[in-house]
Amino acid sequence: MESDTSSSNAPRVGILCIGNEVVDGRILNSNASWIAQELIHAGFLPQLVTTCRDDLSEITEVLTFLSKHVEFLITSGGLGPTTDDLTRQAISHFFDRPLVLSEEELGKLKNFYRKRGRKFDNANNIQAHFPENARVIPNPNGTAPGFIVSRDDTFSICSLPGVPRELHAMITETVLPFFLEQAGSRVCIPSFQELQLFGIPESEAGKRIDRLPLPNEIRVGYRPHFPELQVRVESPNGGEEPLKQAVTLIREELDEYVFSMQAETSLPQVVHELLSAHDTTLAVAESCTSGLLGKLLTDYSGASAYFSGGILSYSNELKEKLLGVPNELIQTHVAVSPQVARAMATGTRERCGSSIGVSITGVAGPNGGTTDKPVGLFYIGIASQGYEVALEFFLPTDRDYVRIYSAFSALDSIRRFLLGLPFLGKTVELP
Amino acid sequence: MESDTSSSNAPRVGILCIGNEVVDGRILNSNASWIAQELIHAGFLPQLVTTCRDDLSEITEVLTFLSKHVEFLITSGGLGPTTDDLTRQAISHFFDRPLVLSEEELGKLKNFYRKRGRKFDNANNIQAHFPENARVIPNPNGTAPGFIVSRDDTFSICSLPGVPRELHAMITETVLPFFLEQAGSRVCIPSFQELQLFGIPESEAGKRIDRLPLPNEIRVGYRPHFPELQVRVESPNGGEEPLKQAVTLIREELDEYVFSMQAETSLPQVVHELLSAHDTTLAVAESCTSGLLGKLLTDYSGASAYFSGGILSYSNELKEKLLGVPNELIQTHVAVSPQVARAMATGTRERCGSSIGVSITGVAGPNGGTTDKPVGLFYIGIASQGYEVALEFFLPTDRDYVRIYSAFSALDSIRRFLLGLPFLGKTVELP
Repeated sequence: MESDTSSSNAPRVGILCIGNEVVDGRILNSNASWIAQELIHAGFLPQLVTTCRDDLSEITEVLTFLSKHVEFLITSGGLGPTTDDLTRQAISHFFDRPLVLSEEELGKLKNFYRKRGRKFDNANNIQAHFPENARVIPNPNGTAPGFIVSRDDTFSICSLPGVPRELHAMITETVLPFFLEQAGSRVCIPSFQELQLFGIPESEAGKRIDRLPLPNEIRVGYRPHFPELQVRVESPNGGEEPLKQAVTLIREELDEYVFSMQAETSLPQVVHELLSAHDTTLAVAESCTSGLLGKLLTDYSGASAYFSGGILSYSNELKEKLLGVPNELIQTHVAVSPQVARAMATGTRERCGSSIGVSITGVAGPNGGTTDKPVGLFYIGIASQGYEVALEFFLPTDRDYVRIYSAFSALDSIRRFLLGLPFLGKTVELP
Repeated sequence: MESDTSSSNAPRVGILCIGNEVVDGRILNSNASWIAQELIHAGFLPQLVTTCRDDLSEITEVLTFLSKHVEFLITSGGLGPTTDDLTRQAISHFFDRPLVLSEEELGKLKNFYRKRGRKFDNANNIQAHFPENARVIPNPNGTAPGFIVSRDDTFSICSLPGVPRELHAMITETVLPFFLEQAGSRVCIPSFQELQLFGIPESEAGKRIDRLPLPNEIRVGYRPHFPELQVRVESPNGGEEPLKQAVTLIREELDEYVFSMQAETSLPQVVHELLSAHDTTLAVAESCTSGLLGKLLTDYSGASAYFSGGILSYSNELKEKLLGVPNELIQTHVAVSPQVARAMATGTRERCGSSIGVSITGVAGPNGGTTDKPVGLFYIGIASQGYEVALEFFLPTDRDYVRIYSAFSALDSIRRFLLGLPFLGKTVELP
């Protein structure tokens, strides 16, 4: 939740998502919310969001309606090569400008296909057609370019493909710079600071921030992206001093959960950068996550500098065989225990010959929970030269979420270990 | 993309979600997709979805626009007791019917507060006001009732609160029965069949399906969810015979890519079910995916019945040490080779004591590609008692996508191995 923005004088932007699959609710309209957030951050006001079917006359009518309410319109979807893809035709009708072939874009399109070893079909020619006098929006991540068409400097449509990865890059690289160029001094870019948090729910963070004496003009927005929480502190009129005050107060309150002060930064990325900067190697031993931690540790290119590999010991047998966890330990304490977590971390460190070993063992559910070891309970082990620790965490929720939270808790524990910070999980004292 | 459904005779319904937090993208519009799916299943056509801000004149203008395109309109949000809640006022303006207090509803409202031990504030009186001649929609899960207002039996608005739990119950219990009562015999529930494909891009599948002599009334929709593709074949009037004919033709054309005929089924789920039904155990050896395959194989509860575990051999050293891949093999053929893939599969099978071993080795990029071994090249190895195979795949794209495609190709290869089907990847003949 965030305080109201409707009184804003910011230039108004409409969003039109085109496609039966969106109207029919077969996919969630995450493009619209992503675009709206980007607009707000750039100083624009999302005014109306509409979704319509792949129907030429209907798209045209919606364009007409929206053009009366906003200065800029972003469309997503309907730019593909099939007969259902009608967005370029609708925009051509709306502006009364014929579609014209761009030889330059056709060349690029054919080149794209050639490079990927795919045959170019003449049906794809349509993707190099644009309304007369349109400006092409390059698509760095796919085949279909977008385009911008303007009328009398009072209304512009930016038309983009619906694939999120393509749309995101095109908005950031071309659409927002174009809007800023057009709207010029009417745009007041808010100054802001993003804090990236792990280990605290949105409701708890919100309650604690609400109690702080923040300067009046400051707005605080929360964007949970499980299991991370992005807190955005914004000074709508660009004032730096109140922003600084607010951020200081929030950091004092929640510093133990903040893993980054950089916008759009994830915990795997922070850990990747930390490990890259340390002269260290790391190996994993995973039980309930079964590879998710290893996957996250290698999301970024260059991971081979610190990541050796690891062992997925889903079964107890492999915990013994591949990690050397003593059978008695598992018999006495069961596999989900601080003792076994610690032995797994030490085992993978030794077997993989790395300087650090990290382990996860837990009850992901939905089955297999007991009164002593309920679903959502997991342990993280960390071992290095002359050092061993076992940490206890508990988040009773769905299987997927327990696994993601476990892997992220391990990442966060690696970060704290490398930086010498106290751990979030409960440190279990072991003999 | 999907072929046009606007020719459908199903009664058309619009959805209007009201609230700054939805337009601003601070919450995902899951109400709209939920409502749309319910409408389709009941034989109605979601025609337009719009989201607008808490602004009286704007809500009224959007109502006017939508009333020209649909027969029924569902609004969500803006029925609360605060000054931002303007939906009932807008609908009152639109129909030109004053808001009238319902003593009966006021009594219920006060009762609701009393029962929960909450103080009733007179500001809440507004929640018992409805446009003249409106029909009240009871809210079994909250305070604010909804209401239905109709004009000349040709256009009706059903206005509901935005809280999902309240809205869901009110749609199911009152709104859909009302629609069915109004639309009567014009409603025809469509029949459909979904096909789940892997290994073919949307464009290629679309081209091949377009060439088939499908019955005229059949509609085909495509929903790519990388790297899977969902093909939905629909008979809008519910005719089973044309649907059967179309599905048979499509299966004949694309059968090698179809991994399921169940709606909303993913490849990891299908492989989970297959492995659960076979009396077999499986271990993985992952290089470039570094755990992603292991994670996908354990997404579903009960995976311990077939999944032993595995080895993440990100470094060449661990390929030798933990998997027993001979150093000469890596030196002669490099790590990304059919020879090493095969040795990794055999190695993990033996070390983990499982009946099947599956390996992945590839160049995920963006760095590390060469002319011989470019980014996007990967090998899958499969080993079982007396059997070894190495398969070559190539999809030059981003690191994330190469890794996901590699892991899914391994899943698909496991499926084909278990079912005795030919593999999609190129089988590499090795001595």
